Amino acid sequence: MVLGAGFGGLTFCQVFRNSQARVTLVDRQNHHLFQPLLYQVATAGLSAPEIAQPARSILRDLPNVSVRLDEVSGIELATRRVELASGPLEYDHLVIALGGVTSYFGHPEWEQFAPGLKSLDDALRIRREVLLAFERAENEPDRAGHDRLLTVVVVGGGATGLELAGAFAELTRHVLRRDFRHIDPGEARVILLEGGDRLLAHMAPEMSESAKRQLEDMGVEVRMQAKVSNISEGLVELADGTRIEAANIIWAAGVSASPLTRSLGVETDRAGRLKVMPDLSLPGHPEVFAIGDLALVMQANGKPVPGVSPAAIQQAQHVARIIDHELSASVPGNAPRPEFKYRDKGTMATIGRSAAVAEIGSIRFSGFMAWLAWLFVHLIFLVGFRNKMAVLLQWFYSYCTYRRGARIVTGIKPSQSDSI
Amino acid sequence: MVLGAGFGGLTFCQVFRNSQARVTLVDRQNHHLFQPLLYQVATAGLSAPEIAQPARSILRDLPNVSVRLDEVSGIELATRRVELASGPLEYDHLVIALGGVTSYFGHPEWEQFAPGLKSLDDALRIRREVLLAFERAENEPDRAGHDRLLTVVVVGGGATGLELAGAFAELTRHVLRRDFRHIDPGEARVILLEGGDRLLAHMAPEMSESAKRQLEDMGVEVRMQAKVSNISEGLVELADGTRIEAANIIWAAGVSASPLTRSLGVETDRAGRLKVMPDLSLPGHPEVFAIGDLALVMQANGKPVPGVSPAAIQQAQHVARIIDHELSASVPGNAPRPEFKYRDKGTMATIGRSAAVAEIGSIRFSGFMAWLAWLFVHLIFLVGFRNKMAVLLQWFYSYCTYRRGARIVTGIKPSQSDSI
Repeated sequence: MVLGAGFGGLTFCQVFRNSQARVTLVDRQNHHLFQPLLYQVATAGLSAPEIAQPARSILRDLPNVSVRLDEVSGIELATRRVELASGPLEYDHLVIALGGVTSYFGHPEWEQFAPGLKSLDDALRIRREVLLAFERAENEPDRAGHDRLLTVVVVGGGATGLELAGAFAELTRHVLRRDFRHIDPGEARVILLEGGDRLLAHMAPEMSESAKRQLEDMGVEVRMQAKVSNISEGLVELADGTRIEAANIIWAAGVSASPLTRSLGVETDRAGRLKVMPDLSLPGHPEVFAIGDLALVMQANGKPVPGVSPAAIQQAQHVARIIDHELSASVPGNAPRPEFKYRDKGTMATIGRSAAVAEIGSIRFSGFMAWLAWLFVHLIFLVGFRNKMAVLLQWFYSYCTYRRGARIVTGIKPSQSDSI
Repeated sequence: MVLGAGFGGLTFCQVFRNSQARVTLVDRQNHHLFQPLLYQVATAGLSAPEIAQPARSILRDLPNVSVRLDEVSGIELATRRVELASGPLEYDHLVIALGGVTSYFGHPEWEQFAPGLKSLDDALRIRREVLLAFERAENEPDRAGHDRLLTVVVVGGGATGLELAGAFAELTRHVLRRDFRHIDPGEARVILLEGGDRLLAHMAPEMSESAKRQLEDMGVEVRMQAKVSNISEGLVELADGTRIEAANIIWAAGVSASPLTRSLGVETDRAGRLKVMPDLSLPGHPEVFAIGDLALVMQANGKPVPGVSPAAIQQAQHVARIIDHELSASVPGNAPRPEFKYRDKGTMATIGRSAAVAEIGSIRFSGFMAWLAWLFVHLIFLVGFRNKMAVLLQWFYSYCTYRRGARIVTGIKPSQSDSI
């Protein structure tokens, strides 16, 4: 049984070759989400179905795989059962690939004021609130209220934070520019807060510098050493006493493993990630594997494998091969399993149109070439032909015209949708 | 001032040439919706942004037009003021183009069990509920529950009812066919209920027959003289005592004018439409016009102008020309105004892939040719270049592969989106 239809779960189903064995894939959403492009939905660049595809549609040609829309409420390792909302289900092998959730570092009450970005619903919520703030500003006579409405704060200087800040800067400076009569969206402030002393801490220092410069060229205010001490309705307070009023605050500062990991009785790190064996199985449970963002796997260089989709895909391939091998060959129960080794194919982060940074091995580049590389890699990996074509068309169109197609607000007062 | 960013309101802004006069367009949504294709969103054929475009983006090149996202709560004809959620606004001329709402013929309590289809939120709700019913059926051991989950009832044999029934039949028979393991979506029942004795009552009887035959060929059960006596959770009851259990019931049987019309002190018909003067102004108020679905205009043949987008567009053009003329020329206040005359360019309704009916003047045709004509007309009119291209691509892809791109469920338990 596989839990989670992210990159790890899907790859496992696609790679697992033993067609005699039945595979059940459980997810609480009906779709696989291409998470690297989720920020594009939040910033009105792409529509939700362009980056999501039903898991059962992706796996339709695998007759031994069945997909189940259900919610995992618990896992009993001892009795080999998964508790689902619709009842318990037994397994022979289990692959836990439930991914992560937004983490507020012990301040869950900030969530209501500063949404994170993990699901399509999160992205649609951010898109709605940002677009509505501009609409409200158009009718706002009060100067302070007007400034507050036109301020977006992004907390967190990792890849997601940069992508969001860059995309919001483009949205306000170019896309919305000529659409309003009483406000100038170009006056909008986009502020990126980073608690440490450089952006993209996982990349080389020169890349951090380049990213910062590219962001500032686009009009983003980047603040280092900006430690958030409190978030309330429309207000971010920093440890140094600074107060920033902003109608929209987006939290891109932390991710932790699915909370389910803490209930397994297996050792976890501070972010809730499961400390797995070198073969990715849980200690004492060779029939259970953890992969993707909720697994803590150490590399030879002493650093953990990063929580990125290529890592989840490689881990899924590794586990599928182990189970395949043990089911098909007459392998003695105590035969040693291969260790998982992460092959780092490079790291990149995009900032905006023609702006990005990339590291592939010892090669580092930034700006237009890095952006092209980023575009290429993401299109190659986008699951499903249709999405690839539509996304390419959409990007090409946006690139040429600076318009954006997905600036639609739905879900305003849904209960009253039939009045007037 | 123009109320409503539908076909009427937008056309008015685009045609109105007097750039000295300021135009304020008020709508409670931020987008213009291409309503003729809304059924495609409800049936997972298109994504929401593909048929919607921000009104301010469409009108960005008209500097004298400003767009305001606001809700109209009342109109005071005597003092020439419109009450908005954010406060009152005065006008010199007023164009009321607020369109219609779903009408349950005195049974508003049916709305919760049988959603109508007027807004994007309606369409997304229908899409979510239908797709979730198939997911639940996949895990449903009980035979009766299984059959109920796989039944969709569409109430109303007008154009919208046919489009929905045809699209659901295709969704179940082709798109979902191979995606499930425990159920066969091809067993799903799609039932179309019509209270009268023929479909598409506004077209010629032979077209009604043709439409019925085409629907039945696609697997839709069509029932005539089926008068609904009650609707409750998952159950439709007919006047003849028939009971139909269905997880999804869609109401496409009635539209009435925006409820605001009843508060104006102007005579309305049973559907709440305003009885306007031949020039489309309100009786006694030459400075106020009503156009589109909420205006009742009689044709020379004694029938009312139908509530379709070409009629709203023609009416908007008519009114824009009158106001233009009176503002620019030195027209005496009591000069007679031209009467509105509706030019009927034909009627069509689509049923599915290669299935449609069309009447253009005295020419009637059905099947593939009618479908091509329908496709052509709708693409020509789709507002905005990007949408046209993306929609064409999408349709071409769906036509070739029978897959659908927008089968995404969002908004499941939104409050828990961060758990597990």
